[in-house]
Amino acid sequence: MSSTTYEPIILVTNDDGVTAPGIRSLIEAVQDLGKVIVVAPDSPQSGMGHAVSITKPLRLDRVDVFDDLNIEAWQSSGTPVDCVKLAHDVVLHRKPDLCVSGINHGSNASINVIYSGTMSAAMEAAIEGIPSAGFSLQDFNFDADFSVAKKVARDVVQRMLQERMPDNFLLNVNIPKVTAENFKGTKICRQADARWAENFEHRKDPRGRAYYWMTGKFENRDQGEDTDIAALNAGYASIVPVRFDLTDEHMKRWLENKWK
Amino acid sequence: MSSTTYEPIILVTNDDGVTAPGIRSLIEAVQDLGKVIVVAPDSPQSGMGHAVSITKPLRLDRVDVFDDLNIEAWQSSGTPVDCVKLAHDVVLHRKPDLCVSGINHGSNASINVIYSGTMSAAMEAAIEGIPSAGFSLQDFNFDADFSVAKKVARDVVQRMLQERMPDNFLLNVNIPKVTAENFKGTKICRQADARWAENFEHRKDPRGRAYYWMTGKFENRDQGEDTDIAALNAGYASIVPVRFDLTDEHMKRWLENKWK
Repeated sequence: MSSTTYEPIILVTNDDGVTAPGIRSLIEAVQDLGKVIVVAPDSPQSGMGHAVSITKPLRLDRVDVFDDLNIEAWQSSGTPVDCVKLAHDVVLHRKPDLCVSGINHGSNASINVIYSGTMSAAMEAAIEGIPSAGFSLQDFNFDADFSVAKKVARDVVQRMLQERMPDNFLLNVNIPKVTAENFKGTKICRQADARWAENFEHRKDPRGRAYYWMTGKFENRDQGEDTDIAALNAGYASIVPVRFDLTDEHMKRWLENKWK
Repeated sequence: MSSTTYEPIILVTNDDGVTAPGIRSLIEAVQDLGKVIVVAPDSPQSGMGHAVSITKPLRLDRVDVFDDLNIEAWQSSGTPVDCVKLAHDVVLHRKPDLCVSGINHGSNASINVIYSGTMSAAMEAAIEGIPSAGFSLQDFNFDADFSVAKKVARDVVQRMLQERMPDNFLLNVNIPKVTAENFKGTKICRQADARWAENFEHRKDPRGRAYYWMTGKFENRDQGEDTDIAALNAGYASIVPVRFDLTDEHMKRWLENKWK
Protein backbone atom coordinates (compact mmCIF):
# COMPACT_ATOMS: atom_id res chain seq x y z
CA MET A 1 0.00 0.00 0.00
CA SER A 2 1.26 3.44 -0.84
CA SER A 3 1.85 5.77 2.07
CA THR A 4 -0.78 8.20 0.78
CA THR A 5 -3.55 5.59 0.93
CA TYR A 6 -5.47 5.22 4.18
CA GLU A 7 -4.61 1.84 5.63
CA PRO A 8 -7.74 0.28 7.13
CA ILE A 9 -7.44 -1.48 10.47
CA ILE A 10 -8.68 -5.05 10.21
CA LEU A 11 -9.47 -6.86 13.45
CA VAL A 12 -9.09 -10.63 13.17
CA THR A 13 -10.64 -12.97 15.71
CA ASN A 14 -12.10 -16.48 15.90
CA ASP A 15 -13.55 -19.04 18.28
CA ASP A 16 -11.10 -21.92 17.79
CA GLY A 17 -8.36 -20.02 19.64
CA VAL A 18 -5.32 -18.06 18.57
CA THR A 19 -3.29 -21.17 17.66
CA ALA A 20 -5.86 -22.73 15.30
CA PRO A 21 -4.71 -23.06 11.67
CA GLY A 22 -7.90 -21.34 10.49
CA ILE A 23 -7.05 -17.95 12.01
CA ARG A 24 -3.57 -18.06 10.49
CA SER A 25 -5.16 -18.73 7.10
CA LEU A 26 -7.48 -15.75 7.56
CA ILE A 27 -4.59 -13.46 8.50
CA GLU A 28 -2.59 -14.60 5.48
CA ALA A 29 -5.63 -14.02 3.25
CA VAL A 30 -6.19 -10.39 4.27
CA GLN A 31 -2.91 -9.10 5.65
CA ASP A 32 -1.93 -7.00 2.65
CA LEU A 33 -5.38 -5.34 2.55
CA GLY A 34 -4.80 -3.30 5.68
CA LYS A 35 -3.18 -3.19 9.09
CA VAL A 36 -4.15 -6.48 10.72
CA ILE A 37 -4.44 -6.88 14.47
CA VAL A 38 -5.43 -10.11 16.19
CA VAL A 39 -7.39 -10.47 19.44
CA ALA A 40 -8.60 -14.04 19.90
CA PRO A 41 -9.43 -16.53 22.65
CA ASP A 42 -6.54 -18.34 24.37
CA SER A 43 -8.41 -21.65 24.03
CA PRO A 44 -11.13 -23.19 21.85
CA GLN A 45 -14.56 -21.57 22.38
CA SER A 46 -16.76 -23.40 19.89
CA GLY A 47 -20.46 -23.26 20.65
CA MET A 48 -20.07 -20.24 22.93
CA GLY A 49 -22.74 -18.31 21.02
CA HIS A 50 -23.02 -14.70 22.11
CA ALA A 51 -21.74 -15.36 25.65
CA VAL A 52 -20.08 -12.45 27.48
CA SER A 53 -18.08 -12.57 30.71
CA ILE A 54 -19.88 -10.39 33.22
CA THR A 55 -19.15 -12.33 36.40
CA LYS A 56 -15.45 -13.02 35.96
CA PRO A 57 -12.48 -10.82 35.12
CA LEU A 58 -10.60 -11.27 31.85
CA ARG A 59 -6.96 -11.76 31.01
CA LEU A 60 -5.48 -10.16 27.92
CA ASP A 61 -1.90 -10.89 26.90
CA ARG A 62 0.34 -10.05 23.96
CA VAL A 63 1.42 -13.25 22.18
CA ASP A 64 4.09 -13.86 19.56
CA VAL A 65 2.30 -16.52 17.47
CA PHE A 66 2.12 -14.25 14.41
CA ASP A 67 5.42 -12.45 14.80
CA ASP A 68 6.64 -14.40 11.75
CA LEU A 69 3.94 -12.58 9.74
CA ASN A 70 4.79 -9.30 11.45
CA ILE A 71 1.28 -9.17 12.96
CA GLU A 72 0.47 -7.91 16.46
CA ALA A 73 -1.58 -10.49 18.33
CA TRP A 74 -3.33 -10.72 21.70
CA GLN A 75 -5.04 -13.60 23.43
CA SER A 76 -7.77 -13.38 26.03
CA SER A 77 -9.30 -15.75 28.54
CA GLY A 78 -12.70 -14.45 27.44
CA THR A 79 -15.26 -15.52 24.88
CA PRO A 80 -15.10 -14.51 21.19
CA VAL A 81 -17.51 -11.65 21.95
CA ASP A 82 -15.30 -10.53 24.87
CA CYS A 83 -12.33 -10.47 22.48
CA VAL A 84 -14.07 -8.03 20.13
CA LYS A 85 -15.02 -5.79 23.05
CA LEU A 86 -11.46 -5.89 24.44
CA ALA A 87 -9.97 -5.20 21.01
CA HIS A 88 -12.13 -2.14 20.61
CA ASP A 89 -11.80 -0.69 24.10
CA VAL A 90 -8.40 -1.86 25.44
CA VAL A 91 -6.14 -2.74 22.50
CA LEU A 92 -7.10 -0.34 19.72
CA HIS A 93 -8.85 2.43 21.68
CA ARG A 94 -10.91 2.96 18.53
CA LYS A 95 -13.20 1.08 16.19
CA PRO A 96 -11.37 -1.03 13.61
CA ASP A 97 -12.54 -0.42 10.04
CA LEU A 98 -13.47 -4.04 9.57
CA CYS A 99 -13.73 -7.20 11.63
CA VAL A 100 -13.27 -10.72 10.30
CA SER A 101 -13.75 -13.88 12.29
CA GLY A 102 -12.57 -17.39 11.49
CA ILE A 103 -11.73 -19.23 9.42
CA ASN A 104 -13.78 -21.64 11.50
CA HIS A 105 -12.99 -25.33 11.42
CA GLY A 106 -16.51 -26.52 10.56
CA SER A 107 -19.59 -25.06 8.89
CA ASN A 108 -21.63 -22.30 10.46
CA ALA A 109 -24.36 -22.38 7.85
CA SER A 110 -28.07 -22.32 8.67
CA ILE A 111 -29.03 -22.40 12.38
CA ASN A 112 -25.37 -22.73 13.41
CA VAL A 113 -25.20 -18.94 13.10
CA ILE A 114 -26.97 -18.89 16.48
CA TYR A 115 -24.59 -21.24 18.32
CA SER A 116 -21.36 -20.16 16.67
CA GLY A 117 -18.72 -18.20 18.55
CA THR A 118 -17.21 -17.28 15.18
CA MET A 119 -20.41 -15.59 14.06
CA SER A 120 -21.14 -14.07 17.47
CA ALA A 121 -17.76 -12.32 17.42
CA ALA A 122 -18.55 -10.90 13.99
CA MET A 123 -22.05 -9.94 15.13
CA GLU A 124 -20.68 -8.16 18.19
CA ALA A 125 -18.50 -6.06 15.91
CA ALA A 126 -21.50 -5.24 13.70
CA ILE A 127 -23.50 -4.24 16.78
CA GLU A 128 -20.64 -1.88 17.64
CA GLY A 129 -20.89 -0.38 14.14
CA ILE A 130 -18.02 -2.25 12.49
CA PRO A 131 -18.74 -3.97 9.13
CA SER A 132 -17.93 -7.63 9.71
CA ALA A 133 -17.84 -11.09 8.27
CA GLY A 134 -17.46 -14.57 9.70
CA PHE A 135 -15.81 -17.27 7.58
CA SER A 136 -16.23 -21.00 8.11
CA LEU A 137 -14.95 -24.00 6.19
CA GLN A 138 -17.11 -27.11 5.95
CA ASP A 139 -14.30 -29.27 7.35
CA PHE A 140 -13.70 -29.96 11.04
CA ASN A 141 -10.17 -31.33 10.58
CA PHE A 142 -7.31 -29.51 12.24
CA ASP A 143 -5.24 -29.90 9.06
CA ALA A 144 -8.07 -28.94 6.67
CA ASP A 145 -7.14 -27.40 3.31
CA PHE A 146 -7.94 -23.69 3.65
CA SER A 147 -6.83 -22.62 0.15
CA VAL A 148 -10.32 -22.11 -1.36
CA ALA A 149 -11.55 -20.50 1.87
CA LYS A 150 -8.63 -18.07 1.85
CA LYS A 151 -9.42 -16.96 -1.67
CA VAL A 152 -13.10 -16.42 -0.79
CA ALA A 153 -12.21 -14.51 2.40
CA ARG A 154 -9.80 -12.29 0.51
CA ASP A 155 -12.33 -11.50 -2.22
CA VAL A 156 -15.09 -10.70 0.29
CA VAL A 157 -12.87 -8.49 2.44
CA GLN A 158 -11.57 -6.65 -0.63
CA ARG A 159 -15.14 -5.89 -1.76
CA MET A 160 -16.15 -4.80 1.74
CA LEU A 161 -13.23 -2.39 1.89
CA GLN A 162 -13.74 -1.05 -1.64
CA GLU A 163 -17.50 -0.49 -1.40
CA ARG A 164 -19.13 1.64 1.23
CA MET A 165 -20.70 -0.80 3.65
CA PRO A 166 -23.26 0.22 6.27
CA ASP A 167 -22.03 0.15 9.88
CA ASN A 168 -24.16 -2.83 10.79
CA PHE A 169 -23.14 -4.91 7.76
CA LEU A 170 -22.61 -8.54 8.69
CA LEU A 171 -22.00 -11.60 6.56
CA ASN A 172 -22.04 -15.30 7.35
CA VAL A 173 -19.72 -16.84 4.75
CA ASN A 174 -19.38 -20.61 4.52
CA ILE A 175 -16.99 -22.40 2.18
CA PRO A 176 -17.58 -25.95 0.93
CA LYS A 177 -14.97 -28.67 1.33
CA VAL A 178 -13.99 -28.85 -2.34
CA THR A 179 -10.82 -28.54 -4.35
CA ALA A 180 -10.12 -25.34 -6.28
CA GLU A 181 -11.13 -27.10 -9.54
CA ASN A 182 -14.52 -28.11 -8.17
CA PHE A 183 -15.27 -24.77 -6.52
CA LYS A 184 -18.23 -23.05 -8.24
CA GLY A 185 -17.91 -19.52 -6.83
CA THR A 186 -20.00 -17.58 -4.30
CA LYS A 187 -23.76 -17.25 -3.91
CA ILE A 188 -25.90 -14.79 -1.93
CA CYS A 189 -28.28 -16.97 0.11
CA ARG A 190 -30.79 -17.06 2.90
CA GLN A 191 -30.34 -19.07 6.11
CA ALA A 192 -31.74 -22.58 5.66
CA ASP A 193 -34.48 -23.63 8.07
CA ALA A 194 -32.61 -26.51 9.74
CA ARG A 195 -31.90 -27.55 13.30
CA TRP A 196 -29.97 -29.95 15.51
CA ALA A 197 -31.85 -32.91 16.92
CA GLU A 198 -30.10 -33.68 20.19
CA ASN A 199 -29.49 -37.09 21.59
CA PHE A 200 -27.67 -37.14 24.91
CA GLU A 201 -25.34 -40.01 25.63
CA HIS A 202 -25.79 -41.21 29.18
CA ARG A 203 -22.71 -42.40 31.12
CA LYS A 204 -21.71 -43.08 34.72
CA ASP A 205 -18.63 -41.63 36.37
CA PRO A 206 -16.28 -43.82 38.48
CA ARG A 207 -18.44 -42.99 41.52
CA GLY A 208 -21.61 -44.16 39.79
CA ARG A 209 -23.08 -40.71 39.25
CA ALA A 210 -24.70 -39.95 35.90
CA TYR A 211 -23.40 -37.49 33.33
CA TYR A 212 -24.37 -36.69 29.76
CA TRP A 213 -22.55 -35.94 26.54
CA MET A 214 -24.44 -33.87 24.00
CA THR A 215 -24.51 -35.40 20.55
CA GLY A 216 -26.73 -34.29 17.71
CA LYS A 217 -27.90 -34.89 14.19
CA PHE A 218 -28.29 -31.97 11.80
CA GLU A 219 -31.76 -31.98 10.25
CA ASN A 220 -32.44 -29.83 7.21
CA ARG A 221 -36.15 -29.53 6.50
CA ASP A 222 -35.65 -26.76 3.97
CA GLN A 223 -35.73 -27.79 0.32
CA GLY A 224 -35.28 -24.22 -0.98
CA GLU A 225 -32.66 -23.75 -3.68
CA ASP A 226 -31.80 -20.29 -2.33
CA THR A 227 -30.46 -21.50 1.03
CA ASP A 228 -26.89 -21.60 2.29
CA ILE A 229 -27.07 -25.37 2.69
CA ALA A 230 -28.18 -25.83 -0.93
CA ALA A 231 -25.35 -23.58 -2.15
CA LEU A 232 -22.73 -25.51 -0.16
CA ASN A 233 -24.08 -28.84 -1.40
CA ALA A 234 -23.76 -27.56 -4.97
CA GLY A 235 -20.12 -26.54 -4.45
CA TYR A 236 -20.67 -22.81 -3.89
CA ALA A 237 -19.53 -20.67 -0.98
CA SER A 238 -22.66 -19.29 0.68
CA ILE A 239 -22.92 -15.64 1.70
CA VAL A 240 -25.82 -14.82 4.04
CA PRO A 241 -26.30 -11.20 5.15
CA VAL A 242 -27.17 -11.35 8.85
CA ARG A 243 -29.22 -9.04 11.08
CA PHE A 244 -29.22 -8.56 14.83
CA ASP A 245 -32.61 -6.89 15.05
CA LEU A 246 -34.48 -10.08 15.91
CA THR A 247 -37.97 -8.53 15.68
CA ASP A 248 -40.26 -10.85 13.74
CA GLU A 249 -42.17 -8.17 11.79
CA HIS A 250 -44.60 -10.66 10.28
CA MET A 251 -45.57 -12.02 13.68
CA LYS A 252 -45.65 -8.50 15.09
CA ARG A 253 -48.37 -7.46 12.61
CA TRP A 254 -50.29 -10.64 13.39
CA LEU A 255 -50.14 -10.01 17.13
CA GLU A 256 -51.05 -6.33 16.73
CA ASN A 257 -54.33 -7.44 15.16
CA LYS A 258 -55.01 -10.39 17.38
CA TRP A 259 -53.75 -9.37 20.83
CA LYS A 260 -55.17 -5.84 20.90
CA MET B 1 -58.41 -28.61 35.39
CA SER B 2 -60.98 -31.29 34.73
CA SER B 3 -59.65 -34.74 34.01
CA THR B 4 -61.12 -34.65 30.52
CA THR B 5 -59.10 -31.60 29.50
CA TYR B 6 -55.67 -32.15 28.00
CA GLU B 7 -53.11 -30.84 30.47
CA PRO B 8 -50.32 -29.09 28.58
CA ILE B 9 -46.74 -29.69 29.70
CA ILE B 10 -45.03 -26.40 30.50
CA LEU B 11 -41.24 -26.41 30.69
CA VAL B 12 -39.88 -23.70 32.99
CA THR B 13 -36.24 -22.62 32.85
CA ASN B 14 -34.13 -19.51 33.42
CA ASP B 15 -30.55 -18.25 33.46
CA ASP B 16 -30.31 -17.02 37.06
CA GLY B 17 -30.30 -20.58 38.39
CA VAL B 18 -32.88 -22.81 39.98
CA THR B 19 -32.77 -21.01 43.36
CA ALA B 20 -33.43 -17.47 42.02
CA PRO B 21 -36.68 -15.87 43.22
CA GLY B 22 -37.63 -15.07 39.61
CA ILE B 23 -38.09 -18.70 38.56
CA ARG B 24 -40.23 -19.42 41.62
CA SER B 25 -42.42 -16.44 40.66
CA LEU B 26 -42.77 -17.80 37.12
CA ILE B 27 -43.74 -21.25 38.39
CA GLU B 28 -46.32 -19.75 40.74
CA ALA B 29 -47.71 -17.66 37.89
CA VAL B 30 -48.33 -20.55 35.51
CA GLN B 31 -48.58 -23.69 37.61
CA ASP B 32 -52.35 -24.10 37.41
CA LEU B 33 -52.30 -23.69 33.60
CA GLY B 34 -50.68 -27.06 32.98
CA LYS B 35 -48.24 -29.64 34.25
CA VAL B 36 -45.10 -27.67 35.09
CA ILE B 37 -41.66 -29.21 34.99
CA VAL B 38 -38.48 -27.30 35.80
CA VAL B 39 -35.03 -27.83 34.26
CA ALA B 40 -32.72 -24.93 35.09
CA PRO B 41 -29.02 -24.20 35.62
CA ASP B 42 -27.49 -25.07 38.98
CA SER B 43 -25.79 -21.65 39.13
CA PRO B 44 -26.27 -18.18 37.62
CA GLN B 45 -25.66 -18.10 33.85
CA SER B 46 -26.39 -14.49 32.95
CA GLY B 47 -24.86 -13.31 29.72
CA MET B 48 -24.35 -16.86 28.45
CA GLY B 49 -26.15 -16.05 25.20
CA HIS B 50 -26.78 -19.11 23.07
CA ALA B 51 -23.81 -21.06 24.44
CA VAL B 52 -23.99 -24.87 24.31
CA SER B 53 -21.70 -27.36 26.03
CA ILE B 54 -20.09 -29.44 23.32
CA THR B 55 -16.67 -30.04 24.90
CA LYS B 56 -17.70 -30.96 28.44
CA PRO B 57 -20.19 -33.46 29.86
CA LEU B 58 -23.25 -32.27 31.73
CA ARG B 59 -24.67 -33.13 35.11
CA LEU B 60 -28.42 -33.34 35.59
CA ASP B 61 -29.89 -33.89 39.04
CA ARG B 62 -33.35 -33.98 40.57
CA VAL B 63 -33.71 -31.20 43.19
CA ASP B 64 -36.36 -30.61 45.82
CA VAL B 65 -36.50 -26.80 45.74
CA PHE B 66 -40.08 -26.78 44.43
CA ASP B 67 -41.41 -29.78 46.32
CA ASP B 68 -43.45 -27.34 48.42
CA LEU B 69 -45.28 -26.38 45.20
CA ASN B 70 -45.53 -30.04 44.20
CA ILE B 71 -43.40 -29.33 41.11
CA GLU B 72 -40.76 -31.70 39.70
CA ALA B 73 -37.47 -29.86 39.25
CA TRP B 74 -34.05 -30.66 37.82
CA GLN B 75 -30.82 -28.70 37.84
CA SER B 76 -27.99 -28.98 35.33
CA SER B 77 -24.38 -27.88 35.21
CA GLY B 78 -25.02 -26.71 31.65
CA THR B 79 -26.08 -23.44 30.07
CA PRO B 80 -29.73 -22.36 29.75
CA VAL B 81 -29.74 -23.73 26.18
CA ASP B 82 -28.33 -27.05 27.44
CA CYS B 83 -31.17 -27.18 30.00
CA VAL B 84 -33.81 -26.96 27.27
CA LYS B 85 -32.09 -29.66 25.25
CA LEU B 86 -31.78 -31.92 28.32
CA ALA B 87 -35.41 -31.30 29.29
CA HIS B 88 -36.59 -32.36 25.87
CA ASP B 89 -34.33 -35.38 25.33
CA VAL B 90 -33.54 -36.75 28.82
CA VAL B 91 -36.23 -35.59 31.27
CA LEU B 92 -39.45 -35.45 29.25
CA HIS B 93 -38.57 -37.71 26.28
CA ARG B 94 -40.97 -35.53 24.29
CA LYS B 95 -41.53 -31.90 23.35
CA PRO B 96 -43.25 -29.87 26.05
CA ASP B 97 -46.27 -27.92 24.80
CA LEU B 98 -44.80 -24.62 25.88
CA CYS B 99 -41.54 -23.30 27.28
CA VAL B 100 -41.21 -20.26 29.52
CA SER B 101 -37.94 -18.78 30.73
CA GLY B 102 -37.34 -16.35 33.58
CA ILE B 103 -38.51 -14.33 35.27
CA ASN B 104 -35.12 -12.73 34.73
CA HIS B 105 -33.72 -10.36 37.34
CA GLY B 106 -33.00 -7.46 34.96
CA SER B 107 -34.30 -6.26 31.60
CA ASN B 108 -33.67 -8.17 28.39
CA ALA B 109 -35.17 -5.51 26.14
CA SER B 110 -33.54 -4.31 22.93
CA ILE B 111 -30.09 -5.75 22.07
CA ASN B 112 -30.02 -7.70 25.37
CA VAL B 113 -32.04 -10.36 23.56
CA ILE B 114 -28.70 -11.36 21.95
CA TYR B 115 -26.69 -11.68 25.19
CA SER B 116 -29.42 -13.06 27.40
CA GLY B 117 -29.36 -16.65 28.60
CA THR B 118 -33.06 -16.25 29.47
CA MET B 119 -33.96 -15.45 25.88
CA SER B 120 -31.54 -18.00 24.42
CA ALA B 121 -33.24 -20.77 26.40
CA ALA B 122 -36.62 -19.66 25.05
CA MET B 123 -35.16 -19.36 21.54
CA GLU B 124 -33.71 -22.87 21.72
CA ALA B 125 -37.17 -24.18 22.55
CA ALA B 126 -38.66 -22.29 19.59
CA ILE B 127 -35.95 -23.71 17.30
CA GLU B 128 -37.03 -27.15 18.51
CA GLY B 129 -40.62 -26.32 17.57
CA ILE B 130 -41.94 -25.40 21.03
CA PRO B 131 -43.85 -22.09 21.36
CA SER B 132 -41.90 -20.09 23.94
CA ALA B 133 -41.58 -16.86 25.85
CA GLY B 134 -38.88 -15.26 27.95
CA PHE B 135 -39.91 -12.95 30.81
CA SER B 136 -37.67 -10.32 32.38
CA LEU B 137 -38.27 -7.73 35.06
CA GLN B 138 -36.53 -4.38 34.83
CA ASP B 139 -35.08 -4.81 38.33
CA PHE B 140 -31.78 -6.49 39.15
CA ASN B 141 -32.48 -6.86 42.86
CA PHE B 142 -32.62 -10.32 44.35
CA ASP B 143 -35.68 -9.31 46.37
CA ALA B 144 -37.42 -7.49 43.50
CA ASP B 145 -41.23 -7.29 43.53
CA PHE B 146 -42.41 -9.80 40.92
CA SER B 147 -46.16 -9.26 41.38
CA VAL B 148 -46.78 -7.28 38.16
CA ALA B 149 -44.42 -9.56 36.22
CA LYS B 150 -46.30 -12.64 37.45
CA LYS B 151 -49.60 -11.23 36.25
CA VAL B 152 -48.14 -10.44 32.82
CA ALA B 153 -46.51 -13.87 32.53
CA ARG B 154 -49.75 -15.60 33.46
CA ASP B 155 -51.80 -13.61 30.93
CA VAL B 156 -49.30 -14.25 28.12
CA VAL B 157 -49.03 -17.98 28.84
CA GLN B 158 -52.81 -18.29 29.04
CA ARG B 159 -53.21 -16.65 25.62
CA MET B 160 -50.45 -18.79 24.14
CA LEU B 161 -52.16 -21.95 25.38
CA GLN B 162 -55.66 -20.86 24.30
CA GLU B 163 -54.75 -19.68 20.81
CA ARG B 164 -53.08 -21.87 18.26
CA MET B 165 -49.45 -20.65 18.14
CA PRO B 166 -47.03 -21.59 15.39
CA ASP B 167 -44.21 -23.98 16.42
CA ASN B 168 -41.53 -21.33 16.11
CA PHE B 169 -43.46 -18.71 18.12
CA LEU B 170 -41.15 -16.80 20.44
CA LEU B 171 -41.75 -13.74 22.59
CA ASN B 172 -39.39 -11.44 24.47
CA VAL B 173 -41.52 -10.02 27.28
CA ASN B 174 -40.10 -7.31 29.54
CA ILE B 175 -41.90 -5.89 32.53
CA PRO B 176 -41.22 -2.39 33.91
CA LYS B 177 -40.32 -1.81 37.53
CA VAL B 178 -43.62 -0.23 38.53
CA THR B 179 -46.30 -0.83 41.11
CA ALA B 180 -49.58 -2.46 40.08
CA GLU B 181 -51.30 0.97 40.20
CA ASN B 182 -48.81 2.52 37.80
CA PHE B 183 -48.72 -0.43 35.38
CA LYS B 184 -50.21 0.55 32.00
CA GLY B 185 -50.66 -2.90 30.40
CA THR B 186 -48.86 -4.68 27.56
CA LYS B 187 -47.70 -3.42 24.18
CA ILE B 188 -46.57 -5.27 21.04
CA CYS B 189 -43.22 -3.68 20.11
CA ARG B 190 -40.13 -3.92 17.97
CA GLN B 191 -36.61 -4.33 19.34
CA ALA B 192 -35.06 -0.90 19.98
CA ASP B 193 -31.81 -0.15 18.15
CA ALA B 194 -29.58 0.22 21.21
CA ARG B 195 -26.25 -1.19 22.31
CA TRP B 196 -23.79 -1.48 25.16
CA ALA B 197 -20.74 0.78 25.09
CA GLU B 198 -18.05 -1.17 26.90
CA ASN B 199 -15.49 0.29 29.20
CA PHE B 200 -13.09 -2.20 30.72
CA GLU B 201 -11.79 -1.54 34.20
CA HIS B 202 -8.11 -2.32 34.38
CA ARG B 203 -6.71 -3.85 37.60
CA LYS B 204 -3.61 -5.69 38.74
CA ASP B 205 -3.65 -9.00 40.58
CA PRO B 206 -1.47 -9.58 43.69
CA ARG B 207 1.33 -10.78 41.36
CA GLY B 208 1.19 -7.59 39.32
CA ARG B 209 -0.44 -9.13 36.27
CA ALA B 210 -3.23 -7.21 34.54
CA TYR B 211 -6.86 -8.25 34.41
CA TYR B 212 -10.01 -6.54 33.22
CA TRP B 213 -13.58 -6.25 34.43
CA MET B 214 -16.20 -5.57 31.79
CA THR B 215 -18.42 -2.62 32.57
CA GLY B 216 -20.76 -0.94 30.17
CA LYS B 217 -23.20 1.83 29.51
CA PHE B 218 -26.46 1.14 27.71
CA GLU B 219 -26.89 3.53 24.78
CA ASN B 220 -30.27 3.86 23.14
CA ARG B 221 -30.07 5.70 19.82
CA ASP B 222 -33.60 4.76 18.86
CA GLN B 223 -36.26 7.44 19.38
CA GLY B 224 -39.08 5.32 17.93
CA GLU B 225 -42.28 5.19 19.95
CA ASP B 226 -42.91 1.60 18.86
CA THR B 227 -39.82 0.14 20.59
CA ASP B 228 -39.63 -2.06 23.66
CA ILE B 229 -37.53 0.55 25.46
CA ALA B 230 -40.14 3.26 24.82
CA ALA B 231 -42.92 1.00 26.09
CA LEU B 232 -41.02 0.18 29.30
CA ASN B 233 -40.23 3.85 29.88
CA ALA B 234 -43.94 4.62 29.58
CA GLY B 235 -44.90 1.98 32.14
CA TYR B 236 -45.97 -0.78 29.72
CA ALA B 237 -44.73 -4.35 29.53
CA SER B 238 -43.13 -4.81 26.10
CA ILE B 239 -43.84 -7.88 23.97
CA VAL B 240 -41.46 -8.37 21.04
CA PRO B 241 -42.03 -11.35 18.73
CA VAL B 242 -38.57 -12.77 18.00
CA ARG B 243 -37.18 -14.69 15.01
CA PHE B 244 -34.19 -16.98 14.70
CA ASP B 245 -33.89 -16.78 10.93
CA LEU B 246 -31.22 -14.08 10.98
CA THR B 247 -31.21 -13.52 7.21
CA ASP B 248 -31.24 -9.79 6.47
CA GLU B 249 -33.63 -9.86 3.50
CA HIS B 250 -33.18 -6.17 2.73
CA MET B 251 -29.41 -6.50 2.55
CA LYS B 252 -29.78 -9.77 0.65
CA ARG B 253 -31.66 -8.01 -2.17
CA TRP B 254 -29.07 -5.23 -2.19
CA LEU B 255 -26.19 -7.71 -2.46
CA GLU B 256 -27.95 -9.75 -5.13
CA ASN B 257 -27.98 -6.67 -7.33
CA LYS B 258 -24.58 -5.36 -6.41
CA TRP B 259 -22.41 -8.45 -5.91
CA LYS B 260 -23.58 -10.43 -8.94
